[in-house]
Amino acid sequence: MVFDEEAIEILEGKNFAYLATSMADGSPHVAPVWIDRSGDTILINTVPGRLKQKNVTRDPRVTISITQQKNPYRHLFIKGRVIEQTKDGALDHINRLSRKYLGKDYPWNDRNRIIIKIAPESAKILD
Amino acid sequence: MVFDEEAIEILEGKNFAYLATSMADGSPHVAPVWIDRSGDTILINTVPGRLKQKNVTRDPRVTISITQQKNPYRHLFIKGRVIEQTKDGALDHINRLSRKYLGKDYPWNDRNRIIIKIAPESAKILD
Repeated sequence: MVFDEEAIEILEGKNFAYLATSMADGSPHVAPVWIDRSGDTILINTVPGRLKQKNVTRDPRVTISITQQKNPYRHLFIKGRVIEQTKDGALDHINRLSRKYLGKDYPWNDRNRIIIKIAPESAKILD
Repeated sequence: MVFDEEAIEILEGKNFAYLATSMADGSPHVAPVWIDRSGDTILINTVPGRLKQKNVTRDPRVTISITQQKNPYRHLFIKGRVIEQTKDGALDHINRLSRKYLGKDYPWNDRNRIIIKIAPESAKILD
């Protein structure tokens, strides 16, 4: 298991993740995302064509920073790699994320979604 | 002026910034930072040798994502370039940042600090 109890607490909390990816010209990109996990796999949900999705299709290396809302000086820092992009289950997944972050099903009619699956290579808590 | 009134409100609020930089191997890095500005220049404060500092010394291109705490679905997204790293005023500056974020002078004895100055090329509000 890459994630210890503290990392899981941060991942399962209502905390935004900041997903860094690389642009075609090698410059860095970062975007806030909803996040959850399935075991040791990180899951995010997006729409094909977004910058982050195009970036990880070209270069699967990502870094994620998550700040714990209730203790904003505790961060989880994850390095990993996108291993799959799939439409399978993506609508159920965006509703699950929406219930986590908004407390209700996803309120926008936005059916063209995909799950991006990330295999973490390292996960560190930084205080 | 790159920053409009809304961008300034987010920059001057007690909001963490997520600074994305590029590692030597081209993979993306992201770290939470305190942030403020002097006119159109973004200022962060760090210690020489940190990953982000080494990264911007090699490649000055950065992207910054800031979420407004009071409205977490409002983000400021800045692309820019590091134009200077200086020790001048860095201790005053870390105290100023600490007063903004912690409400008191910087509580750690950490004198080897530098200001990293970033010239923004674009600043967009994303809802």
